[in-house]
Amino acid sequence: MESNVCTGCNRPDLPWAGRGTSLPISGCRFTLYPMTDGFIDIILGALEQTDTSAVWSETDALSTVYRGKLPYVADAVKALFINAYREGVHMALEGQFSKGCPGDIAGDSQLDREGEAPNAKSLEGKHFPVHCKLALYPMGDASYIDEIARVWYMAEDSGLQPKTIHYATRIEGDVQDVFRYLEAVCELMENSEKVHHYVLHFTMNCNSPTVEE
Amino acid sequence: MESNVCTGCNRPDLPWAGRGTSLPISGCRFTLYPMTDGFIDIILGALEQTDTSAVWSETDALSTVYRGKLPYVADAVKALFINAYREGVHMALEGQFSKGCPGDIAGDSQLDREGEAPNAKSLEGKHFPVHCKLALYPMGDASYIDEIARVWYMAEDSGLQPKTIHYATRIEGDVQDVFRYLEAVCELMENSEKVHHYVLHFTMNCNSPTVEE
Repeated sequence: MESNVCTGCNRPDLPWAGRGTSLPISGCRFTLYPMTDGFIDIILGALEQTDTSAVWSETDALSTVYRGKLPYVADAVKALFINAYREGVHMALEGQFSKGCPGDIAGDSQLDREGEAPNAKSLEGKHFPVHCKLALYPMGDASYIDEIARVWYMAEDSGLQPKTIHYATRIEGDVQDVFRYLEAVCELMENSEKVHHYVLHFTMNCNSPTVEE
Repeated sequence: MESNVCTGCNRPDLPWAGRGTSLPISGCRFTLYPMTDGFIDIILGALEQTDTSAVWSETDALSTVYRGKLPYVADAVKALFINAYREGVHMALEGQFSKGCPGDIAGDSQLDREGEAPNAKSLEGKHFPVHCKLALYPMGDASYIDEIARVWYMAEDSGLQPKTIHYATRIEGDVQDVFRYLEAVCELMENSEKVHHYVLHFTMNCNSPTVEE
């Protein structure tokens, strides 16, 4: 019971019946941080270039959330980040993918989309290196060490050089590979019979002025 | 067992014996995002004004981590954010407070500090409004719904107007009150006999150009 309960939405008033775990809705709440005076233009410009027709979307003063089928949610987040890329401009993307919160609701989603992700073609051939850190919380799985181990080795097998840091895992690589990996971790969680609910927090950045040893 | 294991550091090679849960080390991994061309000067300037002598600290290309006793960790993070504040400059702070990861190590910390937090005096009288979202993951507590409920009502009692959004809770208020609340949530987790390990993810920002209805 305890590990089936969403600790993200913090709703003591919800019926913790677990209905949300059976909803087919994946989501990603994220924020883009271009570290430049022109951050509004970059974000609006990226939005204009990004096809978000395959997801339900809502923006507030802190973040944006996309909800729908995982491939379309991941496609839209990736497209927004890549479309916001500017040569030499330091930018970060902070987000959390999630599915299966027992307190989740059936609405606020887009589930009738089929076919290729709408931004796939326009993103082809776009490459730049990113740093990324992630922390995975698989809930409701008595043996989720196995999932964690698999996720770690998946990063290694993908050439993303996983490294342990306090409270998170660091990976490095091309933006397309890092997004492919994050989506693969979500797929693994969503296809696991043991994990009913997961949250994957991640932060990636490009053009960091910090030189690492 | 399952809910006692750190899913953040993703280390399949660690002995998951739970030793980390008894270490007296609190930590916060965070990143400051001033959305301006002068972001480096703002961050370096804030660092110069902030006394970090009471915590162990490490910075990489993605984030900084402070580790030590909770009051000093919280004081240093708060000081850095407040010292980085510039009238009219949109800025965000993303972070995760945590304690009790079973895979944690005894090193990389500062635990012999006593007395008042070093930045407390210099922060007095500094006020500005912030938006904040948070997601709390208390691990290893069979009845952690009670903790979640308490945390929600704590926000309400503190006048921070908690509101549920997908995958997180929103709160609003003065920067000092929001930090006081986040630290109180950490204290509650750290003093709970049931919670052996928690992670509190949060993002706050100031001077957001987004107008909410």
